[in-house]
Amino acid sequence: MSISQRVLVIGGVALGPKAACRIKRLDPHADVTVLEATSHFSYGGCGIPYYVSGDVSDIKELSTTSFHVLRDAPFFRDAKGVAILANIRALAINRDKKTVTVRHESSGATEDLPYDKLVIATGASPRRLNAPGEDLPGISAVANLAHAAYIKDMVAAGKVGKAVVVGAGFIGLEMAEAFADMWGIETTVVEFMPQLMPNLVSPGLATMAVQNLEKHGVTMHFGEKVVAFEGDGKLERVVTDKRVIEADLAIVAVGVTPNSELAKAAGLDVAPNGGIVVNEYLQTTDPDIYAGGDCIALPNLLTGQLMHLPMGSMANRQGRIIGDNLAGLQRTFPGAVGSFCVKLFDHALTGTGLCLAGAKRAGYDAVNVHLSQLDRAHFYPSKALMYLDLVVDKATRRVLGIQGFTSQMDAVVGRINVVAGLLPRGLTVDELSNVEMAYSPPFAAAMDILNALANAADNLLAGRHRPVSPDEFGTMWADAEQDGLCFLDVRANPDGVRAVERLKMPNYLAIPQDEIPGRLGELPADKKLVLLCNTGTRAYEAQIMLDQAGRESIAVQGGLASVEKMGVDV
Amino acid sequence: MSISQRVLVIGGVALGPKAACRIKRLDPHADVTVLEATSHFSYGGCGIPYYVSGDVSDIKELSTTSFHVLRDAPFFRDAKGVAILANIRALAINRDKKTVTVRHESSGATEDLPYDKLVIATGASPRRLNAPGEDLPGISAVANLAHAAYIKDMVAAGKVGKAVVVGAGFIGLEMAEAFADMWGIETTVVEFMPQLMPNLVSPGLATMAVQNLEKHGVTMHFGEKVVAFEGDGKLERVVTDKRVIEADLAIVAVGVTPNSELAKAAGLDVAPNGGIVVNEYLQTTDPDIYAGGDCIALPNLLTGQLMHLPMGSMANRQGRIIGDNLAGLQRTFPGAVGSFCVKLFDHALTGTGLCLAGAKRAGYDAVNVHLSQLDRAHFYPSKALMYLDLVVDKATRRVLGIQGFTSQMDAVVGRINVVAGLLPRGLTVDELSNVEMAYSPPFAAAMDILNALANAADNLLAGRHRPVSPDEFGTMWADAEQDGLCFLDVRANPDGVRAVERLKMPNYLAIPQDEIPGRLGELPADKKLVLLCNTGTRAYEAQIMLDQAGRESIAVQGGLASVEKMGVDV
Repeated sequence: MSISQRVLVIGGVALGPKAACRIKRLDPHADVTVLEATSHFSYGGCGIPYYVSGDVSDIKELSTTSFHVLRDAPFFRDAKGVAILANIRALAINRDKKTVTVRHESSGATEDLPYDKLVIATGASPRRLNAPGEDLPGISAVANLAHAAYIKDMVAAGKVGKAVVVGAGFIGLEMAEAFADMWGIETTVVEFMPQLMPNLVSPGLATMAVQNLEKHGVTMHFGEKVVAFEGDGKLERVVTDKRVIEADLAIVAVGVTPNSELAKAAGLDVAPNGGIVVNEYLQTTDPDIYAGGDCIALPNLLTGQLMHLPMGSMANRQGRIIGDNLAGLQRTFPGAVGSFCVKLFDHALTGTGLCLAGAKRAGYDAVNVHLSQLDRAHFYPSKALMYLDLVVDKATRRVLGIQGFTSQMDAVVGRINVVAGLLPRGLTVDELSNVEMAYSPPFAAAMDILNALANAADNLLAGRHRPVSPDEFGTMWADAEQDGLCFLDVRANPDGVRAVERLKMPNYLAIPQDEIPGRLGELPADKKLVLLCNTGTRAYEAQIMLDQAGRESIAVQGGLASVEKMGVDV
Repeated sequence: MSISQRVLVIGGVALGPKAACRIKRLDPHADVTVLEATSHFSYGGCGIPYYVSGDVSDIKELSTTSFHVLRDAPFFRDAKGVAILANIRALAINRDKKTVTVRHESSGATEDLPYDKLVIATGASPRRLNAPGEDLPGISAVANLAHAAYIKDMVAAGKVGKAVVVGAGFIGLEMAEAFADMWGIETTVVEFMPQLMPNLVSPGLATMAVQNLEKHGVTMHFGEKVVAFEGDGKLERVVTDKRVIEADLAIVAVGVTPNSELAKAAGLDVAPNGGIVVNEYLQTTDPDIYAGGDCIALPNLLTGQLMHLPMGSMANRQGRIIGDNLAGLQRTFPGAVGSFCVKLFDHALTGTGLCLAGAKRAGYDAVNVHLSQLDRAHFYPSKALMYLDLVVDKATRRVLGIQGFTSQMDAVVGRINVVAGLLPRGLTVDELSNVEMAYSPPFAAAMDILNALANAADNLLAGRHRPVSPDEFGTMWADAEQDGLCFLDVRANPDGVRAVERLKMPNYLAIPQDEIPGRLGELPADKKLVLLCNTGTRAYEAQIMLDQAGRESIAVQGGLASVEKMGVDV
């Protein structure tokens, strides 16, 4: 059989094998070789926390197809027609000669391999803290199967009573859950930033997530820097700028950096964030060289800025597109909006697009709309409250992002995905208000929470609703007796004992919303009214009534449901 | 307080109260009155099956807010500023005088009520079969709280050992589940059409749903017409054109017709389907008269044709838009694509847009792509198979609809909603292939099933994949020894005993996909190969290998997973 083209792929995880198999299906005459520097390839790295937790019982499951066929070299050769060569490290790309210089890690021998088209799928490497003691036994990143085996073996051997996770990003939190939930390890997370996922979610949702992590036994320290690892021949203590934490195991999960050295050395453009620059066809600045996955920089479709989005889902979709384009199709990957989801014990934290801080940083005059609402018909037994943030550009009414936290895990991710699909197309508040969600009581409310969230944004943008966010309320409540404020509880049925306790406060009143017009005289004349109800709906309606009476007020978004979910004791 | 405008609303369920409350919030000076012909208003009619089942314990819960406040007339008056008048029936709309003639049902007195703006929210009425005996005690529709109480009282009193549900639409199936699941009633569903939901899902998904209903004890009869109800003073038997079924209770759930008589008598345009014609502002042909909810005709955004979509979600969203427009905003409701979801015991059946039959009826040269795949990372414990159909226009690659069936209920509805949001914007296969789904192993596969479904469509449209649908395979298998076919099982690990049994068949072969190139000689030269694997993936790859060898084949979409889910014993 004559060869149509020689395709060389550098990197054997996620994107590399995906692109290789796709080109081979489209162009069976292509000669396709994948080079992998280690002995492991085509494994699901995102599954490592679940292997450590025990949800995945055998590490081999991370390297099989969905029907338990091991994705080993013979599998790729016989079922896919792709040669995967392990333990071969690419040392240099020689663009003039169209070869790659490689080293056989077993023998040390080097050779030049020719290509017609090259795919760079070199992935990313875990960042180091560069703290003293970081190489002690008992400290690991979570980046490959060797790390996975090392951690799991320590845990399963009962060697880990206390663990410290450095970094409260996705992997750090997933590892913390694995340790605390399945192994009962005393687990502490140390994060340098002042909140959980500061670039992805609001302080309010972050606080809710922290509450839930702590409820499940994980100790969380924010705004705290790890300065050293200590121990006698193995890790015994993690030292931060605020305390010393005993630990048998430390996970360093402080992000990753793109492996773009090969590309840079070959004269290909690399972005300031370290990712290889590609066009929408995923070609590098050399049109015969494609790149994708964790090693590239990607346009954010909302801001136009380049970002780094190291996720298996990106790698898989990009791999297919590179395969298509290698076969002569003209498929594009224009960028992404940055969707995410993470399971935190019995809750999901998820979002897409920009959070308020991110939107402001990108130059938008944006506002955050927070809503707590039952996620399905209020009379249906399996309902639960869902907590959502919607970030909106004031001038254009364009939706910039949405984030959510709830125990209804698949339901909230489903909502986030709806918005993710529409974000690149310029979704407005008005369109989201009317987006067509499948309805029946076991699945949704008649006015779906996504529609309701957009309606809340509409009311806010129109100035009808002047809210205060639940985290801002938390600050107010901490100094509840300050001058100038009066808390007005407008619920129809305030809970008994606690309501009575609160009513002893000089500036706490309870008047059901429907009685406000007849009881305006009871309101203190000189104070700003802070309106409180269960989830915010009646507070909003009370605000309209008070507007009619010429009284200034602010209404707590999400109501007591959101405030209490944040751990504020009202 | 001076009155800005007099708004009269005819109809006190769903859309009527929603529009009334919204206009009152936007324009507190409006005088807003809602007329309801019965004594019940503002109840969640969609909850009736769950009240009958016992999921909802008190019928009052269907008439409360999410925080247990009864939505009665004083509630609407005090909390919303809206007058709701019960037991007042609108008899005529006098457009010249801008009045509505009403009758007080208690006294029989009539009067004319003036309006500046009128909202018609008259809803829909259940269709009758017009069969002999249809008015016997023990026969009921499921349209209002009186029906709900009647049915629940009979069931709870132990008077129902056997029930017949006429109609396999949403309400019929929900009622069948309520009877069989919670009360152990011997339940039979009789449907005139030859399959379940023929205008909404493919024969394949319909068969899967029927399998699941029958597994849970519901007897299903299709293509069967009810010709009479019989009994001595109360229902005892339902007579069809094929059999006589004993029954203590019969539910007639054969659809609804819009209540458009008032509108028609007033000279407003009414569509051939009986729905009141409205423009995108939800104005009737009289600009001072709005209409929405179950009584209107609605444009299908895919076909441009008028449809009738009697759903609480439509009514709620339209009600808000009517309220907006009454207040002088210019909000539009351009139409819908027709999303739905229904819980059938432990599975969900859901979809949006057109099924293949609907697409063909609308004039599209369309194709259906069927996929079965795990809905999240294959190594994650809570994964399950999801069965999806994607309907695509061949010429334009435009997505026309998607339908799904699975036990992962929220997860599949989430996928459907993503497509529903994008359908009105001209979603193509290529865009769906790259739609950004939030990923982590507890929620999705790295290549989300939506992306995978679009990829399957791409392969099919390109001619790389030449499939046979699982229901067509079912027909082939029923006559498995017919000439000209050879079933080729390409799994790596076919199940033991059954595989051996099958191999006794003269035209059943098992060759793992990766061994095909080396074993071409074993394939019968004169037969068309029908390729089978677990979920269709390896069959597709085998097809590409066989193409290379010049051998004709078809690959079973969804593989054994889909075929067996349909109850075919392979």
